[in-house]
Amino acid sequence: METTEPEANVTRIMLAVNESSIKGYPHASISSRGAFEWTIQKIVRSNTSGFKLLFLHVQAPHEDGFEDMDSIYAFPEDFKTMKHRDQTRGLHLLEYFVTRCHEIGVACEAWVKEGDPKEVICRQAKRMRPDLLVVGNRGLGPFQRVIAGTVSEFCVKHAECPVVSIKRSPGETPRDPVDD
Amino acid sequence: METTEPEANVTRIMLAVNESSIKGYPHASISSRGAFEWTIQKIVRSNTSGFKLLFLHVQAPHEDGFEDMDSIYAFPEDFKTMKHRDQTRGLHLLEYFVTRCHEIGVACEAWVKEGDPKEVICRQAKRMRPDLLVVGNRGLGPFQRVIAGTVSEFCVKHAECPVVSIKRSPGETPRDPVDD
Repeated sequence: METTEPEANVTRIMLAVNESSIKGYPHASISSRGAFEWTIQKIVRSNTSGFKLLFLHVQAPHEDGFEDMDSIYAFPEDFKTMKHRDQTRGLHLLEYFVTRCHEIGVACEAWVKEGDPKEVICRQAKRMRPDLLVVGNRGLGPFQRVIAGTVSEFCVKHAECPVVSIKRSPGETPRDPVDD
Repeated sequence: METTEPEANVTRIMLAVNESSIKGYPHASISSRGAFEWTIQKIVRSNTSGFKLLFLHVQAPHEDGFEDMDSIYAFPEDFKTMKHRDQTRGLHLLEYFVTRCHEIGVACEAWVKEGDPKEVICRQAKRMRPDLLVVGNRGLGPFQRVIAGTVSEFCVKHAECPVVSIKRSPGETPRDPVDD
């Protein structure tokens, strides 16, 4: 007994998504895909008209500095090229999720922003006031966490909306955390 | 286009609920009711057959010690009486939520357990493997948090399933935190 609901009344779920950090692998990270699948399977379920997903991808400045270490930046255009490529990668990432939503039949919107991911996510959550923020969690060990911090822990603590952090199952964890 | 789904396939949401700590006021706390209403309005929505709610109320031993400070415990039966009354209050609390679920038409189960709430909640979450654990958050200030700790922070950190902590809106916050 499902009815078409006016947009003002849908549950708006913001998903913070990022790329796999595998070098040269411009795809959604395992943890982002896990967070998305959890949202669809466990929350949206068959009620596709009751939800709207808001995808946010935040690119840290110089996120892929490693693979650019050999590049020479002699002209302002060199930076523009890099920024353009970053943007393209971000769009490729969001295209994956938007296409999936389209297949499933759930409404969505998507953004690319630049900045410190944890801070931009919280700022956007404050601005857009989603009913729930879903963030993937790479499930780093205690030692790696100290080094890397985790975006999800920061969001759980600081975002003004309800937040759920979706840990990867052990079977999905790559041997090298950088492959996430 | 909703179908009756087999129970194995429903999304199981565990809600940790507690009593208002207003003296002699055996009702659901504001934060528990808020967590429940959020779950119904934002997650379950019209898809009542897609979800099952698992209510857990954990009674700390001597939870209402204050109002028993004048009592004399001279016989083992005195303790039994107190325990029986605690149990009755716990049932009264759960009855509220079970009745609401019945009205809404969403399946549910409910338990009373005794022990340290944060530890029992995590243990039960491990045992029952809900898809999501929802806990209310009294929204204590930094000073009060140091004194009281918060059950929700502990669960977010230690429960093995996804956890969402629902903060009260400022308008719902009683002047005296003990009234929650």
